[in-house]
Amino acid sequence: MAKKKSGNGISVGVVGSGSFATAIVKMLTENCKTIHWCVRNEFVKGAIELKKHNPSYLTAVLFNLKQLQITTDINELVSACDVIILATPSIYLGKTLEPLNVDLQGKLFVSAIKGIVPEQNDIVAHFLREKHNIGFRSQAVISGPCHAEEVAMERLSYLTVSAAEEENAAKVAKLLESDFIKVNKSSDILGNEYSAVLKNIYAIGAGIAAGLGYGDNFNAVYVSNAIREMELYLDAIYPEPRDVNQSAFLGDLLVTAYSLFSRNRMLGNLIGKGYTVKSAIQSMSMVAEGYYATKSIYEIGKERKLKLPIVNTVYEILYEEKNAEKQFKKLTAKLN
Amino acid sequence: MAKKKSGNGISVGVVGSGSFATAIVKMLTENCKTIHWCVRNEFVKGAIELKKHNPSYLTAVLFNLKQLQITTDINELVSACDVIILATPSIYLGKTLEPLNVDLQGKLFVSAIKGIVPEQNDIVAHFLREKHNIGFRSQAVISGPCHAEEVAMERLSYLTVSAAEEENAAKVAKLLESDFIKVNKSSDILGNEYSAVLKNIYAIGAGIAAGLGYGDNFNAVYVSNAIREMELYLDAIYPEPRDVNQSAFLGDLLVTAYSLFSRNRMLGNLIGKGYTVKSAIQSMSMVAEGYYATKSIYEIGKERKLKLPIVNTVYEILYEEKNAEKQFKKLTAKLN
Repeated sequence: MAKKKSGNGISVGVVGSGSFATAIVKMLTENCKTIHWCVRNEFVKGAIELKKHNPSYLTAVLFNLKQLQITTDINELVSACDVIILATPSIYLGKTLEPLNVDLQGKLFVSAIKGIVPEQNDIVAHFLREKHNIGFRSQAVISGPCHAEEVAMERLSYLTVSAAEEENAAKVAKLLESDFIKVNKSSDILGNEYSAVLKNIYAIGAGIAAGLGYGDNFNAVYVSNAIREMELYLDAIYPEPRDVNQSAFLGDLLVTAYSLFSRNRMLGNLIGKGYTVKSAIQSMSMVAEGYYATKSIYEIGKERKLKLPIVNTVYEILYEEKNAEKQFKKLTAKLN
Repeated sequence: MAKKKSGNGISVGVVGSGSFATAIVKMLTENCKTIHWCVRNEFVKGAIELKKHNPSYLTAVLFNLKQLQITTDINELVSACDVIILATPSIYLGKTLEPLNVDLQGKLFVSAIKGIVPEQNDIVAHFLREKHNIGFRSQAVISGPCHAEEVAMERLSYLTVSAAEEENAAKVAKLLESDFIKVNKSSDILGNEYSAVLKNIYAIGAGIAAGLGYGDNFNAVYVSNAIREMELYLDAIYPEPRDVNQSAFLGDLLVTAYSLFSRNRMLGNLIGKGYTVKSAIQSMSMVAEGYYATKSIYEIGKERKLKLPIVNTVYEILYEEKNAEKQFKKLTAKLN
């Protein structure tokens, strides 16, 4: 794969072919002459090249094939790019990057993944550092609130790009900004990553509550407790002067906990309505990343003796087969 | 009217016959033998006595008439009660209390009103003190998040009661608590009152955005900016150690900005869809209190030189007939 620049001197690639990966490719098409795109397999590659759209996600988004350099080879993509945006579901990241054997020096890895890498039971930033020797200074994180479906419709959305190096945040921001994408910049990589993981757990809980028949009044109280629980967690794990009411924290929680597009909320909703956890997971075609996040965050919370009543409640329902109605009844006494 | 105790030694009355007043009477029926209720006019009184429900609001809530002492005479009600819960729309409060001429010594006035009293262009706490010589120590405030419609359905809701005197907050809490109502206590009367006023303005803005076609991604960013703007306002007007992510602040904002039950959001929605402000107001049968709040808060903000981009945008659309689409486009550049 020839290393094609993006028109602004940077060659950029996207790894993943799910809905958010597709949304990011769409964002990049506004600014970049060429986007390298590493998709899951030859079928997806062939389908995009034939139909000009992703066969499974955001099918209404039509691409100009001249802008795309599609591959299924992660090494080919990474070799060709200065900036690599990772956007696979977190559970596939380990496998996707396993074959990586090219020089990573000078490359910026940007995670748009909101979840825990199951093999490591850890967030992406830690996984990249430990497994692939990619230091925090060579990393950046893209946070929402941003449902891919609304990017497809070009509805105004705000992203936050976090990076230890200010110039890296600026570089990524420049690639993404357009008429319908505004970008905030931050240096709080780990805070933004953990919050994106936590919000998926809270969204599962919001879904459970809705499925059980709790209403809008309760949900508002629930979310106001969730953001305080998130703040407590972030301050304990990674203290930093941060305002959790920034868009990347509260906004991202809101879009996930309130929106009908949210997979995590949907998973919770099915469980609240009486599905078993197993059948709820099976009935969904997309991975609800909050499921894995719940176990990981619960364990960290337990180890650190943090007071996380919502995370603990969701954990007990998902992993200990406890009755959702009873657990939520207990939870309501701990909220305020 | 004989002064009937409520069963726990306190005689309690509710002033107002709208949806929230009716919801409060319902809450009180869980705890009180007798509830004094001052309704708007003889027609409403007669209708409740005949049908056992409010003829216009929450009509599914059936009352046991033996628990109700209904009057249309504010002096009769106030004489009979130790605790008087005010729940009229804010624009009718001045007129409702005008005839008041009985001794108010030792009585607790509890405002469940979320709005500005137009004659004074001020919040209820100030109006009661200035116009009726009711000091802050004889006042309490009830805050949501609490849509009356969900109280009617006995869906779990959390209220916050604020009072300068802790025992007063506890007294009111005890009257309201039940299987479906939980109550937080606070001493921040003015913070809670101003936030309830502000959230109505933000709900109008959320409605305008939705009417204009902005989506969930934007709304999440908008609300996360709104809560920060609210914090800035409250800290400037009435500094106090407070966490705006408490249910009475963030929760109340969320339920109003997200819920379809919200009148303020509905008003904004109509304007966003292209109705003129006048026709939008006329097409709604209930008063959207945020309309009056917008003018008052805008003026205070201007006087104090506060940076309130959302309040200012809503003001310009409501009062200066500026184009909603253009003003929101400008606003999007100020959010982050």
